[in-house]
Amino acid sequence: MSKAFFQRLENSAHDHRLPLAQVVDNLCFNEQGLIPVIAQDCSSKTVLMQAWMNREALHKTLHTGRMVYWSRSRHRLWEKGASSGHRQKLISMSFDCDGDVILCQVEQQGAACHTGRPACFYFAVEPEQQQVRVIGDANPP
Amino acid sequence: MSKAFFQRLENSAHDHRLPLAQVVDNLCFNEQGLIPVIAQDCSSKTVLMQAWMNREALHKTLHTGRMVYWSRSRHRLWEKGASSGHRQKLISMSFDCDGDVILCQVEQQGAACHTGRPACFYFAVEPEQQQVRVIGDANPP
Repeated sequence: MSKAFFQRLENSAHDHRLPLAQVVDNLCFNEQGLIPVIAQDCSSKTVLMQAWMNREALHKTLHTGRMVYWSRSRHRLWEKGASSGHRQKLISMSFDCDGDVILCQVEQQGAACHTGRPACFYFAVEPEQQQVRVIGDANPP
Repeated sequence: MSKAFFQRLENSAHDHRLPLAQVVDNLCFNEQGLIPVIAQDCSSKTVLMQAWMNREALHKTLHTGRMVYWSRSRHRLWEKGASSGHRQKLISMSFDCDGDVILCQVEQQGAACHTGRPACFYFAVEPEQQQVRVIGDANPP
């Protein structure tokens, strides 16, 4: 159903507009009601993290302009930075061709990663050495 | 199990090294055996797409240096660009703090999106207008 919705839009011309509510209604949330969300730093273009939203988190993010995710471990909405102060201001949002991924450009306050590192992707793969190298130090405990 | 593995690594110092096989063994593949993979253009830093890998796709990607995904619609391995020529050369790979997302820097040949648009995130949300705007034209059919 929702896949078909996005397939019909593939040949839409540049600048074609659709009602936001209609597109959101057709987004592909998974069987847990979640959709993956990539947060990218709007200035440096660093990919900061990937997390998940349900419909309510998406609504709150658009409504407040602050990134709100669904925490799969805590089973509740999670306003990024609400406890740490490391908030993410939403600058822009886009959906992908299949309607099953959200990309957000954000203004990150402080560290995006809960370890205190600037971004979550700190395990660098070194295939030739068959090793993984940690990039950056965690915050002092 | 794998979450605990990554939690134990949170305070690892910069430059700490681990065997690749051990880290891969502990990655969090979901109940379908898949892990989300973000492909980012190594030059422009544009987020091109998000797709999925199983263990075999990850192994083939690291072994061949070309991005190989698991196609959830076709239920088979999918070497990106094998039919379109729009291949992705792997430049670097990293894992996130929880071991449940992979980020790849790639060199993209041609368009990343199957519609012919340079990247998949071509539905721009315009919250104030309550609309979504298509960015870019599809390839002529």
